[in-house]
Amino acid sequence: MPIVELHVLEGYNSLEKQRLSEVLTDAVRFVIPAAPELVTVMIHDVPTDNYYRGRIQRSPAPALPDPAQIVKDYLAAMEARKLETARAMLGDGFAMTFPGTAPMRTLEELIEWSKPRYKFVTKTYDGFDAMQGVGDAAIVYCRGMLQGEYHDGSTFEGIRFVDRFEITGGRITRQDVWNDMAEVRANA
Amino acid sequence: MPIVELHVLEGYNSLEKQRLSEVLTDAVRFVIPAAPELVTVMIHDVPTDNYYRGRIQRSPAPALPDPAQIVKDYLAAMEARKLETARAMLGDGFAMTFPGTAPMRTLEELIEWSKPRYKFVTKTYDGFDAMQGVGDAAIVYCRGMLQGEYHDGSTFEGIRFVDRFEITGGRITRQDVWNDMAEVRANA
Amino acid sequence: MPIVELHVLEGYNSLEKQRLSEVLTDAVRFVIPAAPELVTVMIHDVPTDNYYRGRIQRSPAPALPDPAQIVKDYLAAMEARKLETARAMLGDGFAMTFPGTAPMRTLEELIEWSKPRYKFVTKTYDGFDAMQGVGDAAIVYCRGMLQGEYHDGSTFEGIRFVDRFEITGGRITRQDVWNDMAEVRANA
Amino acid sequence: MPIVELHVLEGYNSLEKQRLSEVLTDAVRFVIPAAPELVTVMIHDVPTDNYYRGRIQRSPAPALPDPAQIVKDYLAAMEARKLETARAMLGDGFAMTFPGTAPMRTLEELIEWSKPRYKFVTKTYDGFDAMQGVGDAAIVYCRGMLQGEYHDGSTFEGIRFVDRFEITGGRITRQDVWNDMAEVRANA
Amino acid sequence: MPIVELHVLEGYNSLEKQRLSEVLTDAVRFVIPAAPELVTVMIHDVPTDNYYRGRIQRSPAPALPDPAQIVKDYLAAMEARKLETARAMLGDGFAMTFPGTAPMRTLEELIEWSKPRYKFVTKTYDGFDAMQGVGDAAIVYCRGMLQGEYHDGSTFEGIRFVDRFEITGGRITRQDVWNDMAEVRANA
Amino acid sequence: MPIVELHVLEGYNSLEKQRLSEVLTDAVRFVIPAAPELVTVMIHDVPTDNYYRGRIQRSPAPALPDPAQIVKDYLAAMEARKLETARAMLGDGFAMTFPGTAPMRTLEELIEWSKPRYKFVTKTYDGFDAMQGVGDAAIVYCRGMLQGEYHDGSTFEGIRFVDRFEITGGRITRQDVWNDMAEVRANA
Repeated sequence: MPIVELHVLEGYNSLEKQRLSEVLTDAVRFVIPAAPELVTVMIHDVPTDNYYRGRIQRSPAPALPDPAQIVKDYLAAMEARKLETARAMLGDGFAMTFPGTAPMRTLEELIEWSKPRYKFVTKTYDGFDAMQGVGDAAIVYCRGMLQGEYHDGSTFEGIRFVDRFEITGGRITRQDVWNDMAEVRANA
Repeated sequence: MPIVELHVLEGYNSLEKQRLSEVLTDAVRFVIPAAPELVTVMIHDVPTDNYYRGRIQRSPAPALPDPAQIVKDYLAAMEARKLETARAMLGDGFAMTFPGTAPMRTLEELIEWSKPRYKFVTKTYDGFDAMQGVGDAAIVYCRGMLQGEYHDGSTFEGIRFVDRFEITGGRITRQDVWNDMAEVRANA
Repeated sequence: MPIVELHVLEGYNSLEKQRLSEVLTDAVRFVIPAAPELVTVMIHDVPTDNYYRGRIQRSPAPALPDPAQIVKDYLAAMEARKLETARAMLGDGFAMTFPGTAPMRTLEELIEWSKPRYKFVTKTYDGFDAMQGVGDAAIVYCRGMLQGEYHDGSTFEGIRFVDRFEITGGRITRQDVWNDMAEVRANA
Repeated sequence: MPIVELHVLEGYNSLEKQRLSEVLTDAVRFVIPAAPELVTVMIHDVPTDNYYRGRIQRSPAPALPDPAQIVKDYLAAMEARKLETARAMLGDGFAMTFPGTAPMRTLEELIEWSKPRYKFVTKTYDGFDAMQGVGDAAIVYCRGMLQGEYHDGSTFEGIRFVDRFEITGGRITRQDVWNDMAEVRANA
Repeated sequence: MPIVELHVLEGYNSLEKQRLSEVLTDAVRFVIPAAPELVTVMIHDVPTDNYYRGRIQRSPAPALPDPAQIVKDYLAAMEARKLETARAMLGDGFAMTFPGTAPMRTLEELIEWSKPRYKFVTKTYDGFDAMQGVGDAAIVYCRGMLQGEYHDGSTFEGIRFVDRFEITGGRITRQDVWNDMAEVRANA
Repeated sequence: MPIVELHVLEGYNSLEKQRLSEVLTDAVRFVIPAAPELVTVMIHDVPTDNYYRGRIQRSPAPALPDPAQIVKDYLAAMEARKLETARAMLGDGFAMTFPGTAPMRTLEELIEWSKPRYKFVTKTYDGFDAMQGVGDAAIVYCRGMLQGEYHDGSTFEGIRFVDRFEITGGRITRQDVWNDMAEVRANA
């Protein structure tokens, strides 16, 4: 039965409202086990003329981009070695941690670290899980399988991985990577 | 400015409403970059006498337990080797995948698998990320550090891990585990 | 999808709210072809402390009795020849018209009129249709079959009838009766 | 005091909303004896962009035509002997019962039945009562007086009648007719 | 926290809504000591198509002009001796009382009264206080200082005054004036 | 037609809600010329369990006392020479200005100032006008007539006065007084 009414300042587009409806529906279902088709979301666009806080009209903040899409775009850029594109997606204080590494702060460090490990690696995705954190960062997990080629020309595939990203204000500020590469190599 | 009004059938307790307010607030902030203190949530309890769908009164479904708490309880039970307690928290079709394993379906399989690997392992937590999936399962990630003792008496600590759980109807139905144990061993 | 919210002063009981939900659901479906289970009615009880019109608190008017039930009770009293009971249910200006009669204003007139026609008659009901008129009167139609006995001892049954009632302020103010008795007699 | 708020998907026109306001006002007054001018109806048009059930946008169903108008048009067509027009207004499973008849399923049956009875008949209306039934059918009663001419050239007038119609999905599916013709003839 | 939702018929312009938001915010803060920035006002414009009272569409009444502005315009006209302009702003039953006078009903009376008192007087404003009275009149107080010139050529300034106006339907219907002129003259 | 819905945290009593309904009704009528009986105010008490801002429950602030009543009590205390009582009603930064005086900050100054002027004075009230200012202060005007006795035993009466008060947080912080005493004495 749950009915969610969201009052927001006018200005969000159809796609942004679709995203709002999805996260609000999921939020309700996180606590109340209602079938999805019994969760109704109604969005009330409030024109700025019709909204006042403290006697003062307010303006809507532009919607945040979809953090899962940001992660997809970033990973695609990295895989295509478009470093400029990827670098432009990183926010202040960016840090990434890979298996066995200390936090790295630049893409150059990552490339340096991976160089002796494999010739290239690509990702196949099993799923993305995205949510808002309690603070300002959105959190995105992506998981799936790695495949690629070692320097000796041998190849690997089906290696499980999971990445955790924090996205703040539309920029990636943190990446944590786990995978089974060492496990697989140890068993090889 | 966003104001969320949630109409639900009367019967949810204070803690359940607190949880609803949190996920609804986070849901809005996933799309709209409003400061938290500008996101208002009002819950309207609708007595069953006052709610009808298709001319018929409806009853509220009991709230789902907090899936992050379920995961914490499960991990604590496993660490304390309270297998009965842990087993009771698993749902139909439960499957768990650890580094290098195929999906395992019983706790006995896991114990068998881990036996040659270490004497014991405990977890220190850096954080839990929980959300509702699109389907019926809630998803919980927990991450942190492993420490423990190998069979040769040497110890380990500070080994990064992340677990992904799916919780359906209050039972754990899937666990996926990644960690740096092999990486650390390879570098040892 | 239609959602009806009704704000009324606190004080209506569960049965009265059930009746409100039914007529409101039907009202929506009179215009919008939504499946019943997609029509939601939420009633908001407003305590008198919380409702003001023109700066003044207002009190809820007692609910009207169900006019279909009034008609059922009246017809049962008439059939059982409880004239006192039936008469107490009639309102000012009551008038009833039967096949071939001018408007009659007292139950005695009706008894006088029917005396030569049959020894007794009872009714079997196929259905009641009740609605609010544009004015203050509710309108109730009941239809079904007549059976009974003529003065010559012969019996009749399966004779179609329909009655139309107007109920104002809980009292019957008008009754119009149609049936096939003359048709049946003509064909006998 | 009652205030009705109706949330519907955007797309209903002014006349349809007028009809909604009327039936909702009447519905409230069926239970609560408020003066009409104290019953407020507010309709909230919800753009499809702003409404979601189960995370999915929904479309408004086209409004049903006014069933009383359908009955008026049908009776006018029959009186004018526009059988094609009338037939097009009948729905699947249509059945009509006249005084003394079994259910008839075609207009031809009706014409056959009436042929020996009178040369023609026209109707004068005293009123229409229309409402939604509990199921999908709307119910319309119309009542008034019959006038016409018998085959012997004599005329009749002032004969009471009432018709009950069921209208489903904009088509007439049932007609039941009662009148005083036999009574009047018997007394002639 | 207070949130005010105002439902009004569509048609008020941005400035009129700004005024509504201000008086509604102030009204809440008259009773509840919320910081202004915690008082939210949302105005819901209801199209006439979507609003019915007693089954009937209603039209919005044009907004009243700002009574404080009316007072300012009137006082400016008087100071500039634009008597025609000022007179046009007076309503039926207008009466004004100045220190020591009986109620005067025409501007001519006022001019006659003031003639022996000073050559001219102008006003400097410290503030306007405007509110709706319980009846139809709005009430405006303005206060500040008088300066001007006596007939002997001497000047005065810094003389406190306060005026109280009643404005009904956009016309001034009452003015009451208090000031320290006599006090100052007595002390001169 | 205007309908005001006020959402406030649960805890305000009947009298406080009555006051809210009055000021909200007046606020609407300050801009929209609706007859009072067409202005509806509905207050929604939101339990603290059901209200969250920034994921956090909030508590209702105790209502402010009626500032007009504070002024009445203060003037009554002054007239009865209950200086302790009156002094306790004054807030930080209190200042009062009487005809011809500089701002006085203590009741003793006022008594000193009035001593040579009259033996005593009492007030008869024609009306109180109270409103919230834009800042934190409520503003109360009271007006009426002064009567009393001079030191020579002669009496006066019917002398117009008006007082303006500012009340902040339930304490009087400013009083400005105008009256016709000097005018009357000059004309005596």
